[in-house]
Amino acid sequence: MSLPSVNLPDAAHLQLAVCDYPEHVPQDRWKDYARQQKALGLSYVRIAEFAWALMEPTEGQYEWAWLDQAIADIAAAGLKVVLCTPTATPPAWLTRTYPETMPYDHEGRLREFGSRRHYDFASPVYREHSRRITRAMAERYGAHPAVAGWQTDNEFGCHDTARSWGGASAAAFPGWLQARYGDVQALNEAWGNAFWSMDYQSWDQIRPPNLLITDVNPSHLLDFYRFASDTVKSFQEEQVAILRELSPGRFVTHNFMIFESGFDHYEVAKGLDFVSWDNYPTGMLEHFSGWGSDDIKTRYARTGHPDFISFQHDLYRGLLHRPIWVMEQQCGQVNWAPYNPLPADGAVQLWTAQAWAHGTDVVSYFRWRAATMAQEVMHSGLLRHEETPDRGFAEVQALDLNQFPSGAVTAKVALLHDYESLWLYDVQKHAASLSYWAQTVSYYAALRGLGQDVDIVHPDSDLSGYAVIVAPALTLMTPERAAHLEEAAAHARVVFGPRSAYRTVSGRTPEDGQPGVLAGLLGSKLLNFDSLRPGLSVRVEGPDHAVDVTTWAESYRLNPAARNGAEAVYSYSDGPQQGQAAVVRHGNVTVIGAHSEELIRTVLAGELKAAGLKAELLPEGVRLSRRAGKTLVQNWNQAEVTYAGQKLAPVSFVVKND
Amino acid sequence: MSLPSVNLPDAAHLQLAVCDYPEHVPQDRWKDYARQQKALGLSYVRIAEFAWALMEPTEGQYEWAWLDQAIADIAAAGLKVVLCTPTATPPAWLTRTYPETMPYDHEGRLREFGSRRHYDFASPVYREHSRRITRAMAERYGAHPAVAGWQTDNEFGCHDTARSWGGASAAAFPGWLQARYGDVQALNEAWGNAFWSMDYQSWDQIRPPNLLITDVNPSHLLDFYRFASDTVKSFQEEQVAILRELSPGRFVTHNFMIFESGFDHYEVAKGLDFVSWDNYPTGMLEHFSGWGSDDIKTRYARTGHPDFISFQHDLYRGLLHRPIWVMEQQCGQVNWAPYNPLPADGAVQLWTAQAWAHGTDVVSYFRWRAATMAQEVMHSGLLRHEETPDRGFAEVQALDLNQFPSGAVTAKVALLHDYESLWLYDVQKHAASLSYWAQTVSYYAALRGLGQDVDIVHPDSDLSGYAVIVAPALTLMTPERAAHLEEAAAHARVVFGPRSAYRTVSGRTPEDGQPGVLAGLLGSKLLNFDSLRPGLSVRVEGPDHAVDVTTWAESYRLNPAARNGAEAVYSYSDGPQQGQAAVVRHGNVTVIGAHSEELIRTVLAGELKAAGLKAELLPEGVRLSRRAGKTLVQNWNQAEVTYAGQKLAPVSFVVKND
Amino acid sequence: MSLPSVNLPDAAHLQLAVCDYPEHVPQDRWKDYARQQKALGLSYVRIAEFAWALMEPTEGQYEWAWLDQAIADIAAAGLKVVLCTPTATPPAWLTRTYPETMPYDHEGRLREFGSRRHYDFASPVYREHSRRITRAMAERYGAHPAVAGWQTDNEFGCHDTARSWGGASAAAFPGWLQARYGDVQALNEAWGNAFWSMDYQSWDQIRPPNLLITDVNPSHLLDFYRFASDTVKSFQEEQVAILRELSPGRFVTHNFMIFESGFDHYEVAKGLDFVSWDNYPTGMLEHFSGWGSDDIKTRYARTGHPDFISFQHDLYRGLLHRPIWVMEQQCGQVNWAPYNPLPADGAVQLWTAQAWAHGTDVVSYFRWRAATMAQEVMHSGLLRHEETPDRGFAEVQALDLNQFPSGAVTAKVALLHDYESLWLYDVQKHAASLSYWAQTVSYYAALRGLGQDVDIVHPDSDLSGYAVIVAPALTLMTPERAAHLEEAAAHARVVFGPRSAYRTVSGRTPEDGQPGVLAGLLGSKLLNFDSLRPGLSVRVEGPDHAVDVTTWAESYRLNPAARNGAEAVYSYSDGPQQGQAAVVRHGNVTVIGAHSEELIRTVLAGELKAAGLKAELLPEGVRLSRRAGKTLVQNWNQAEVTYAGQKLAPVSFVVKND
Repeated sequence: MSLPSVNLPDAAHLQLAVCDYPEHVPQDRWKDYARQQKALGLSYVRIAEFAWALMEPTEGQYEWAWLDQAIADIAAAGLKVVLCTPTATPPAWLTRTYPETMPYDHEGRLREFGSRRHYDFASPVYREHSRRITRAMAERYGAHPAVAGWQTDNEFGCHDTARSWGGASAAAFPGWLQARYGDVQALNEAWGNAFWSMDYQSWDQIRPPNLLITDVNPSHLLDFYRFASDTVKSFQEEQVAILRELSPGRFVTHNFMIFESGFDHYEVAKGLDFVSWDNYPTGMLEHFSGWGSDDIKTRYARTGHPDFISFQHDLYRGLLHRPIWVMEQQCGQVNWAPYNPLPADGAVQLWTAQAWAHGTDVVSYFRWRAATMAQEVMHSGLLRHEETPDRGFAEVQALDLNQFPSGAVTAKVALLHDYESLWLYDVQKHAASLSYWAQTVSYYAALRGLGQDVDIVHPDSDLSGYAVIVAPALTLMTPERAAHLEEAAAHARVVFGPRSAYRTVSGRTPEDGQPGVLAGLLGSKLLNFDSLRPGLSVRVEGPDHAVDVTTWAESYRLNPAARNGAEAVYSYSDGPQQGQAAVVRHGNVTVIGAHSEELIRTVLAGELKAAGLKAELLPEGVRLSRRAGKTLVQNWNQAEVTYAGQKLAPVSFVVKND
Repeated sequence: MSLPSVNLPDAAHLQLAVCDYPEHVPQDRWKDYARQQKALGLSYVRIAEFAWALMEPTEGQYEWAWLDQAIADIAAAGLKVVLCTPTATPPAWLTRTYPETMPYDHEGRLREFGSRRHYDFASPVYREHSRRITRAMAERYGAHPAVAGWQTDNEFGCHDTARSWGGASAAAFPGWLQARYGDVQALNEAWGNAFWSMDYQSWDQIRPPNLLITDVNPSHLLDFYRFASDTVKSFQEEQVAILRELSPGRFVTHNFMIFESGFDHYEVAKGLDFVSWDNYPTGMLEHFSGWGSDDIKTRYARTGHPDFISFQHDLYRGLLHRPIWVMEQQCGQVNWAPYNPLPADGAVQLWTAQAWAHGTDVVSYFRWRAATMAQEVMHSGLLRHEETPDRGFAEVQALDLNQFPSGAVTAKVALLHDYESLWLYDVQKHAASLSYWAQTVSYYAALRGLGQDVDIVHPDSDLSGYAVIVAPALTLMTPERAAHLEEAAAHARVVFGPRSAYRTVSGRTPEDGQPGVLAGLLGSKLLNFDSLRPGLSVRVEGPDHAVDVTTWAESYRLNPAARNGAEAVYSYSDGPQQGQAAVVRHGNVTVIGAHSEELIRTVLAGELKAAGLKAELLPEGVRLSRRAGKTLVQNWNQAEVTYAGQKLAPVSFVVKND
Repeated sequence: MSLPSVNLPDAAHLQLAVCDYPEHVPQDRWKDYARQQKALGLSYVRIAEFAWALMEPTEGQYEWAWLDQAIADIAAAGLKVVLCTPTATPPAWLTRTYPETMPYDHEGRLREFGSRRHYDFASPVYREHSRRITRAMAERYGAHPAVAGWQTDNEFGCHDTARSWGGASAAAFPGWLQARYGDVQALNEAWGNAFWSMDYQSWDQIRPPNLLITDVNPSHLLDFYRFASDTVKSFQEEQVAILRELSPGRFVTHNFMIFESGFDHYEVAKGLDFVSWDNYPTGMLEHFSGWGSDDIKTRYARTGHPDFISFQHDLYRGLLHRPIWVMEQQCGQVNWAPYNPLPADGAVQLWTAQAWAHGTDVVSYFRWRAATMAQEVMHSGLLRHEETPDRGFAEVQALDLNQFPSGAVTAKVALLHDYESLWLYDVQKHAASLSYWAQTVSYYAALRGLGQDVDIVHPDSDLSGYAVIVAPALTLMTPERAAHLEEAAAHARVVFGPRSAYRTVSGRTPEDGQPGVLAGLLGSKLLNFDSLRPGLSVRVEGPDHAVDVTTWAESYRLNPAARNGAEAVYSYSDGPQQGQAAVVRHGNVTVIGAHSEELIRTVLAGELKAAGLKAELLPEGVRLSRRAGKTLVQNWNQAEVTYAGQKLAPVSFVVKND
């Protein structure tokens, strides 16, 4: 599917929006709300993503009057509408009439109606209803002048719903495998099924890899995850095709969710006009950041961690290499983390400014008025339950949008990320407290702490524009990918993290050992890897200093055939790998085998310098982000700091011209 | 059902009893045991609550000879019998013949036979058997001169059995909803089902709210909990009606369980003559008190925490505003907590004295002889396995019952408690380490630490006799309840805790914001609430001092329309709510928005003083309880303390005349 | 089944072996691998335990060519083969054609194909296939000159598979009970089913004791565990009978797994020629040793804990009182613990030497080449993925086997162990942080720390040769066992730990209290037991010193009828049991009622001395093990230590002549 280039909204500077739910309040509020929204300086209102039961109260009987009116009221106030397909919440009648549309969880349990996302992406019956309601909406509103664009569904994969471990998905999985492998013996070989007598003789013997006695075959899991990801992708493509047909000139996007890992976002984003995501900084830190220490969680409880947030911005901007939207932006407390603190004064402005600086064209606050019913009554909105402006409202009102011009984010540093590597890494973590995200974010945060702008991109994408390329955890390697990286290394400094190229395309290890086809580029081969429980550490010594390493330590032997000669920049000075190389540099390419924030920062600083980039070690909580000729200087601390001779108020920002 | 007033046992002072299981020992022991029990000074023996399989070994064939004899032997020794309906343990033949009587757990699993409480309260088939065995027992023993009264079933709800999440309960739930709402659209509106497209079109679409993809709609949960509570209530009513018919003049009670929250105890207690409960102080602290710190759990490991225990006494006494029984009183180690320490020397006496002082007329020790078989062999009794007196026996023997006269507990302080508020609070705690019980017990413990006697009563009950009324966590508010509290505030000081009136009768929030219909009384409206992870705190400043607040902090704006003028007694001096009111006083009414033991104690001390009550800050572990003109001075410490010039031995009490 | 005495391999010294998987690598590697294995000094290669799907790709069609060749290549290199029945991994066709062979887990879920051990031992259908494939293999290879012997299946019980909680096991359980009890009323009496009305009227009412509402009847559990254990036993016996018939002169063994508790190893070992087990020291410490403190886990992370490892050696040697094999010996990192560190330099040699000293005749390293596919790609082998020698290879190569002569381990100390006691102890731990293994290993480690060699033997076995007999946790006691121990005490010092003789053969408590039939021998009876949460301790005073006791404290009254007079050696000096005996000595017999490493060590040191054994307190991490006139002096520390005037390098050993 080729990318349409037309339907991107265009504006001179950042625009604002809000998520609103006319169906949650009496109709007499609608006009007033729209007027207030316009007065606040908003441009768009997103509606209807959970309103299926109201659009189609019983099967095949549509009720559009209320939505006609809601759109009319919004349009009358001078606002544009973002409409959503409502497929994240199939109505009760659908679920009860067609129970075969329901998903199974990893424990093998059929899930129940009563919240949201209760469907199996693979269900042909559900897909029929998905297409039908999409078509019905698009027919009615596709050409409406107030409708600027569409959001498909809502937060694919949220609540661990990208995969169903039974039912329709279980039925569809063998067919997907047959299409991929053709012959069942090819699958047995690819998966290494000889290992525990796991060979299959026919496709119908194969099921999702759950309820096992012990560990899963990672190849089985990898293909099941790929199948589920492809299923999400094709589910959305069906909706997009209908929207393209019936709503020409309007954009289509999807709001992706924080650190969601249930599908390959690069694949699922294809065919969208731009990517959007849902930005909840405090919930992200408290709930999603399994690797954050309690110290960090407490320090940044009221703002979120700047690097965790900007990681998402940079990740989603990199899916299509285009500006993004924040489709849902926290503007007060959330309700779904174990603890849900009030944001600090200034946090809503800081989040908005940061979003802009990382390539966001529209920030849409969630939500207009706090819900007075159901699951999210403890969640904030711009208005309180009682309809008075809440704390975030005033911050939004005070924003001067002219300081946030449109334009490009131009990063000279690329960070490589790949969902298949993530799946393979995490199924066999080998050291419980490290994970793909934890390792990847460590490298990202080091770069941000050195003042760098970063593009997070797929390893197989165009890398020609970058001076430094960092691959923190590129577990899966293919010959094509290796060749692509070799090309990149011809013009850029390239840094790899541990576990690089541990696995082949089918999830096996290279027959010639790690890093397999990457050995030439790295100038070295893996000797051993060491998994360190909390309390256990080893020491690494380099040119100037020594550092303690926790969690992970791998070692290398230099490849005598390396073209330009490889050198051990750091080596272990104690432990079982004493004397072995921990960091190897081979021409432009460096591999860091040991996990240590200090080591990562030091090596990256050297590589940035070698690439001619300016790298400065920023104070804790101070961050720089650049866009359109401006630099956003941010203070994420709840105390004043002085940076570059300038006092920065707590939780604040300054926009400076470059 | 109106409350009969006749069947209350009457005695000049505290009486003692024991739980015995003749079916667990050879018949040649029965007469001896009864003689020993009488010699120990006991008055009652409770029997037969788990003996169904012996009364009715196969369906419809009763064997009464053994029970005839057991009752005769007890009676012959001059003791009275408390008989139990045996429905807590349906026999194997019942479960196997009628599997439709079995319950489902929250995970959707059908539960199995092999322990106890394996039935669904909603099962019509089980109810038929419940009525049949109750009638059979009542016909045979209802008029027996030695039978003083009845206990229904045993510990309703224990082991999370108040609710069955499938089977008969799932089948009955829609009918209950139809009876409550009449029209399914009324239910949709009450539950706010528009929120996530959760509208129902017919009653049969509705199921228990488990196995969901993500959070439950609190309104859905609230009504399912109400349904389950009503089902427990009607289950018991069927037994009570039969007992009233066939056993005139005998009391009927039920032994409620520590902190059990699966049903509305106020409703289920209606129709009983008096309430009893099962008092296991060490297990209560170790197992049920999720909020107790490890320090407190270790400090009071051998006595239980005095306030946790007396909270139960006061709670159960308040269900019917009558003296209570302790139907099962720990008299040695229990077996069901993660750790089961031996009670300290003196603890059995202290527990007994405390029970008396809080309105207990009969204390029944669990159990006579330690069981030599099955699940509870590690549990103690008054006798060891080997039939020698265990540690508790000597303490019981040494008790002088004359020091514990019958009479009234007359408290001037009421603490309001409501199970619906509990359910709503806990389904959306918002701060993981706080809960309804934790918050409620904090206020209660503060009052006890200030030397107050406390009635724990339902918010809708008669509040006319109280000088101070404390509502720690009255989450659910209705217009009628608000009016009732306004009346009470005309003559009493009233103190509210955080999250007061957050929710309406159907579990939504007030459309005009919190505290909705209570805003006039409080003289203020809610601004924000702040959820504080461990390590995060805010500071509150008041007239004399400042305190640190953890876990929860909410703020208010004063209501300019408040009749007598409201004042911010404490305000936040840092954090996002800096400058906002944390404690508001409006005439007689105070609301405390921040969670801090010190703040609660300080505000309550002021209110007690303002109400003309004497409040003194008691030393750690020292408690006072008053009944019938006596004051029980208690030392719960395992060290001697001096209080009011008097030395108190470790784990001991003194009865003083007022 | 009588024990054949013929099929034991005989050699002058320790021999080495390796686990290899020809089916995992291309056939062109086989000859080379065999040659390299021979050159490394190996004698045996174990193969084929997971190769069923390759031997029988579809039902009834065998493919032997590859295995013929694999065996031929091994034989050609001068190595012997250990062949395995492949029943640990039924192929997909079997599982899909005969789903009734699949097991259920404790949560009632049917398990799925995709890893290993997915079968129910009780399935008659699976047993038919087990016999068929065993016969097919034995017919083809039973008389092959290169085949030295057989391993049945693989690691019975691993991954909690000894018991299936539904399906075939549920169907077979009632019949097993009927055979044991004859009459259902006898079962009701044995189980104490009167307790909670749990009496059965017919066998078919009885099911496995899972999915219960609350605690299980320990008698129900005990018999279900016995049933499962007997089922494992008879499953293996069917294979052994076929192997005896068709493979005369070859040994049959089974590789038992670390701390596996799902069946009675004494029973299942009967009929084998010798016992083998799988020794993974680092994984054992990190994963299986629930009771190890974090300090110990970190200190010994790279070597495993010496006493945990030797406990296994001594346990398995004691099953048949014969030398053992280590069938799988870790020789690099494992992959299945939360953390999987690299072993320290020297650890592979130290593990090998320790194995020899504790009675191992053959050590077989797992595995030859690290797997390049599936579940265990992160596990090490002697060769890396890339086929170069890994760290362990060099250590094996450098071993001088002549220093490890064959011969007897002659221990004067016996430690009594019994799986039924384990099951009863752990079902009612009463103090969450103590368990049967934790208590038992505490006593064992104390003995090892005092320099003793220890036989771990069944309490009912021949005890005549021992000077000191230690029974750390002999929970289950019968009159016969008590008489046997009385006989032993006539010639040996006997030490009991807490909870001795708490339970009868059916899991009840003695009617005359603990320790029932053992009271005469102990010269005392139990008064009370005290369960101590972390932070709670009591103090015990003895002749010379006082110690703090944590977790468990029980007290005794001296038996006035004791023949030789009993004395309280230690008594409690505080807490509820103040003044009561904590340690009682009665002639040759001592019972230790309090849990304290120091107390255990002190009492045991005294008993060893009294028995005329030399006991010295070894330095931390230093251990002595004796075999065949040699003493293996071991240093398990990662630092040099001086012991007996000799410097010991980190992680090393010295073999000394006695």
